[in-house]
Amino acid sequence: MDDIPPRSPAASSVVLSQVMGITDANLQGNVHGGVIMKLVDTAAGTAAIRHCGGRVVTAAMDEMSFLHPVMLGDLVTVRASVNYTGRTSMEVGVRVEAEDVQTGRVLHTSTAYLVFVALDGDGNPRSVPPLAPETPDELRRQREAKIRRDARLRRKAELLAGRQDA
Amino acid sequence: MDDIPPRSPAASSVVLSQVMGITDANLQGNVHGGVIMKLVDTAAGTAAIRHCGGRVVTAAMDEMSFLHPVMLGDLVTVRASVNYTGRTSMEVGVRVEAEDVQTGRVLHTSTAYLVFVALDGDGNPRSVPPLAPETPDELRRQREAKIRRDARLRRKAELLAGRQDA
Amino acid sequence: MDDIPPRSPAASSVVLSQVMGITDANLQGNVHGGVIMKLVDTAAGTAAIRHCGGRVVTAAMDEMSFLHPVMLGDLVTVRASVNYTGRTSMEVGVRVEAEDVQTGRVLHTSTAYLVFVALDGDGNPRSVPPLAPETPDELRRQREAKIRRDARLRRKAELLAGRQDA
Amino acid sequence: MDDIPPRSPAASSVVLSQVMGITDANLQGNVHGGVIMKLVDTAAGTAAIRHCGGRVVTAAMDEMSFLHPVMLGDLVTVRASVNYTGRTSMEVGVRVEAEDVQTGRVLHTSTAYLVFVALDGDGNPRSVPPLAPETPDELRRQREAKIRRDARLRRKAELLAGRQDA
Amino acid sequence: MDDIPPRSPAASSVVLSQVMGITDANLQGNVHGGVIMKLVDTAAGTAAIRHCGGRVVTAAMDEMSFLHPVMLGDLVTVRASVNYTGRTSMEVGVRVEAEDVQTGRVLHTSTAYLVFVALDGDGNPRSVPPLAPETPDELRRQREAKIRRDARLRRKAELLAGRQDA
Amino acid sequence: MDDIPPRSPAASSVVLSQVMGITDANLQGNVHGGVIMKLVDTAAGTAAIRHCGGRVVTAAMDEMSFLHPVMLGDLVTVRASVNYTGRTSMEVGVRVEAEDVQTGRVLHTSTAYLVFVALDGDGNPRSVPPLAPETPDELRRQREAKIRRDARLRRKAELLAGRQDA
Repeated sequence: MDDIPPRSPAASSVVLSQVMGITDANLQGNVHGGVIMKLVDTAAGTAAIRHCGGRVVTAAMDEMSFLHPVMLGDLVTVRASVNYTGRTSMEVGVRVEAEDVQTGRVLHTSTAYLVFVALDGDGNPRSVPPLAPETPDELRRQREAKIRRDARLRRKAELLAGRQDA
Repeated sequence: MDDIPPRSPAASSVVLSQVMGITDANLQGNVHGGVIMKLVDTAAGTAAIRHCGGRVVTAAMDEMSFLHPVMLGDLVTVRASVNYTGRTSMEVGVRVEAEDVQTGRVLHTSTAYLVFVALDGDGNPRSVPPLAPETPDELRRQREAKIRRDARLRRKAELLAGRQDA
Repeated sequence: MDDIPPRSPAASSVVLSQVMGITDANLQGNVHGGVIMKLVDTAAGTAAIRHCGGRVVTAAMDEMSFLHPVMLGDLVTVRASVNYTGRTSMEVGVRVEAEDVQTGRVLHTSTAYLVFVALDGDGNPRSVPPLAPETPDELRRQREAKIRRDARLRRKAELLAGRQDA
Repeated sequence: MDDIPPRSPAASSVVLSQVMGITDANLQGNVHGGVIMKLVDTAAGTAAIRHCGGRVVTAAMDEMSFLHPVMLGDLVTVRASVNYTGRTSMEVGVRVEAEDVQTGRVLHTSTAYLVFVALDGDGNPRSVPPLAPETPDELRRQREAKIRRDARLRRKAELLAGRQDA
Repeated sequence: MDDIPPRSPAASSVVLSQVMGITDANLQGNVHGGVIMKLVDTAAGTAAIRHCGGRVVTAAMDEMSFLHPVMLGDLVTVRASVNYTGRTSMEVGVRVEAEDVQTGRVLHTSTAYLVFVALDGDGNPRSVPPLAPETPDELRRQREAKIRRDARLRRKAELLAGRQDA
Repeated sequence: MDDIPPRSPAASSVVLSQVMGITDANLQGNVHGGVIMKLVDTAAGTAAIRHCGGRVVTAAMDEMSFLHPVMLGDLVTVRASVNYTGRTSMEVGVRVEAEDVQTGRVLHTSTAYLVFVALDGDGNPRSVPPLAPETPDELRRQREAKIRRDARLRRKAELLAGRQDA
């Protein structure tokens, strides 16, 4: 892995922007949460592909918030960048914003964190380039990804202990 | 809230089953992770609607694993049931299995936890019936949901503290 | 064919369950009849695949009733099981129910009978396992499928005779 | 009903023509039977709307054959015309043909018969114009629809008797 | 190219007819302009495939008018025929009409002209059969296609000159 | 109209970015031209809505080139900005680029020009803010839009004259 030159989060960051149409609606008449999840998965996966230069597979959606409903006709912008890399895995952070096109009002509607694993031609995990965060924001995101990772492991341990006690 | 009679998780549990077709594919030729996320959101939302008997909105996808790829043609079964209730919120647990229809082989492909908020006619949060878990499994799920909830709060505090230190 | 061990209808029965969304709507605002037909074809085909363990092709939709409109948001459940087998063909019976998720009210909305032919790797018809109905219901369904089959042949003869007379 | 002037089948006949694309595919790589069923339902419903000049609802798909697979890229032509009218119902006959656009080869792939009921503004059945077949073909189709109708009633009686004997 | 026998526009003309459904809607509740564009591209491409008997690629949409909105439920008819051929390219003219099925009222909603290039098995341009217009209308369309072609070339020259002056 | 303050093209410019998936494919396995047309219409319409702050309707697609096929998996970026305004109409220019996400190679695949009309609440044309181009590029685009407009009028006159001579 030491042979793979490190890459900055900016080098693989992705912005998707899409106007929400009728086929994205739920029955309340705004945008189906699952449509936003799918967009988030696509944006995050594209950032991961760019970082490692090959195929990836989603390993986990590790929390996604829904702060405001997204309306039909909104211009949804999904920004994804790699926050943290393990040996074969990458955590990608995603921020979703929805803009009312007529008024220009923008709302932050979701934040999400996903984990992807890089695959080689046979579908086996393969090493990814190390991450080289440069800006203070990139460094903060890397630090926070580590906190999430530790929390995830600790929570798993607690759940496991809970089952053994039960 | 005390006036609302409690309901068991079984009373609102939901099973969705769907055969994966060509429009569900990603470019590797198996099922797009986002398609599964959307199904999970729909199943979990339906369980939440059943529990509270009214409209709900997704507040968070609080972790979702992807253990195996789902193949085109697979019969996907998504089981959702309410694990835990707060005053106006419900945690719903979801288990996804994929069956190869010709061979009958079944794989557990995802587990997910989502949080929904019940809404009244004006779109404001409203009280939900308390949960009355009955079986040992239902009691364990309620206990584990509480661990996830605490972990979530603790992690938020750590992230906040980290930002203040920075 | 005698070499293929018989299989019970229960062994290949299929249940599909899906929540009807906006893309399933017709212009009256309930579910498009064609959407239900497609679901019925998928469920029935999946039961046929399970019974014969290989590829199948739809030969006929042999009557399908529409008893009530299905509403958007309804949880539609489609149950399919093999009623009758010929040498290379299978009749599959399908029952469709729609549940209003908020109230729990369930309506029987359609019954349908479809005929499938099993195909080998070259796309030619191949033998299917004989059916071994076990319960009184399964025996009744096999008997009624035979009546439908005879009626179908008799009607064809009448139509043919009518054309020759004309 | 005597006040509604009769209409010929030709006056309400419908032709739909569509090129089959990737979203119409099944997993064998040709066109999903359910896609053709949906097209047939739409064409037949449009003929029924034209005949009665108002809303209709599908009451039954009364047999549909699948004679050849339809290929992706095929130009599918669906012809529908009213064969027979009762007081509030209409039987519509549909013929489906698929043309290989490059070679010009045309195959007759399905025949189907559907029954629709005309609805008034409140969703209740309402009278439809009587049918005035004019050509020998139109007269034959009306005659055969009557045979199908009688066969349907007779079959129902047999099934009912069979259940009472059982 | 002289070896390829000429073909009349009528021999390759195409008619597509489709009922506009809910997934074709824009947020104003009528049909999305892009849906009509896609239909026009498909109809024109099918006429081009028929004329040259092989694969084609869209080179340009050379003007498309939108004269009236198309309503949900309308029966849209798209007529395409080859107007003009170059050595490897074909101009296809398309006329779109929308019929209100209940009233029978028909509106001419769009006219469009597209240019396609014929491709051989390796994806390189290949010669197309010369066009043999026969009727006065076909001759007029060929003449007008030539005017459009000249206008296109002249406009390109003007735009180029304008950039060099600037 | 003099009362409406002028707006720069930059103030209403729009960027849409989308990863092309399986439902965007044509039968050659790359992206359907009609899918790109629909995206272009949406991007251009969004810029027009932003410029005039209200509803718009597409009046014409006034030429669109297809320079390279777009591949499945490509990240397609569609940039739209208002080039020219009349009293109630706006010409919007659109540039489409496709990026191979793994290699980072970007191709310019289409240029298009569309005309929109602003509508008031009753669906009648209404005045739009005048355009205030600021940069040399914006001034050039306005100048070229005028050339296209003149060419369009001249071509129409020629076609009309041609029909009268015929």
